[in-house]
Amino acid sequence: MNRDQAEARGVQAYYPKDMAWCYGCGRLNEAGHHFQTNWEGEETVTTYTPCSEHMAIPGFVYGGLIASLLDCHSTGSASLALYRDQGHELGSDAPLPRCVTASLKVDYLKPTPLGVKLIARGKIRDMNNKKVVVESELYAEGILCARGEVVAVSMPENFGK
Amino acid sequence: MNRDQAEARGVQAYYPKDMAWCYGCGRLNEAGHHFQTNWEGEETVTTYTPCSEHMAIPGFVYGGLIASLLDCHSTGSASLALYRDQGHELGSDAPLPRCVTASLKVDYLKPTPLGVKLIARGKIRDMNNKKVVVESELYAEGILCARGEVVAVSMPENFGK
Repeated sequence: MNRDQAEARGVQAYYPKDMAWCYGCGRLNEAGHHFQTNWEGEETVTTYTPCSEHMAIPGFVYGGLIASLLDCHSTGSASLALYRDQGHELGSDAPLPRCVTASLKVDYLKPTPLGVKLIARGKIRDMNNKKVVVESELYAEGILCARGEVVAVSMPENFGK
Repeated sequence: MNRDQAEARGVQAYYPKDMAWCYGCGRLNEAGHHFQTNWEGEETVTTYTPCSEHMAIPGFVYGGLIASLLDCHSTGSASLALYRDQGHELGSDAPLPRCVTASLKVDYLKPTPLGVKLIARGKIRDMNNKKVVVESELYAEGILCARGEVVAVSMPENFGK
């Protein structure tokens, strides 16, 4: 876990224990990335500094890591949005919606430099009580490097059954 | 590296050394996944058995890992397709085209079970001498779990400059 991740406390800190094992954002998955997503005004934000091995070619971030970051950033954003829509904020006793990804699209606009903090900024583009569309931009040192669009859905009760 | 990966020898085994560090498919990246992609008739195939930590929730594969697999599978497929289009097969002395991802789309159709070998099967849907569109299907135990579409482009000489 990177220091900026350890210090953050996002929606993922509030997922129920049986939903907190995700390799991308689960706080209980020791091997994972521990992405943390929270509101910043009307936007959602996830920051992460990739490890040195997360490269595509030397000096640049692996596209799969960027996809992973935008994936968890978006499902976290969707949880936050549904929760707020229900009248709740993090820390409330009301059960937090947990979302899964129906589709993920990433446009890689520029090579993303390795060794700096990445900032994913999300906007809720559309939502109903089961589905949230999250559009995101990924920045490195203030430069827009990738765009993401994720359709996230509330995890169905029969997930995987 | 999984045994099925160690035994495979795909296009990634032929990438030049300075292009062989990718976290997903670089043979020189000790921490990475070591995906290997090769032809199977007119299709391209990449197999991978995720590690136990690569979970979304217990029992199911992390979507970011699936995106990573389809990403490298597709850029590898694009290299194979461009090489064949130039009249070459792996093992030839001609320089192998190395591709990067312009865009990645993944539709997650079903939860993907953890603990079994995943098989990505790709088809070249469109190509010219610089750009290849790869459509893929991801199977677990014969069940279609995800679909991917990647636009891969030949790595520009000024990449990252």
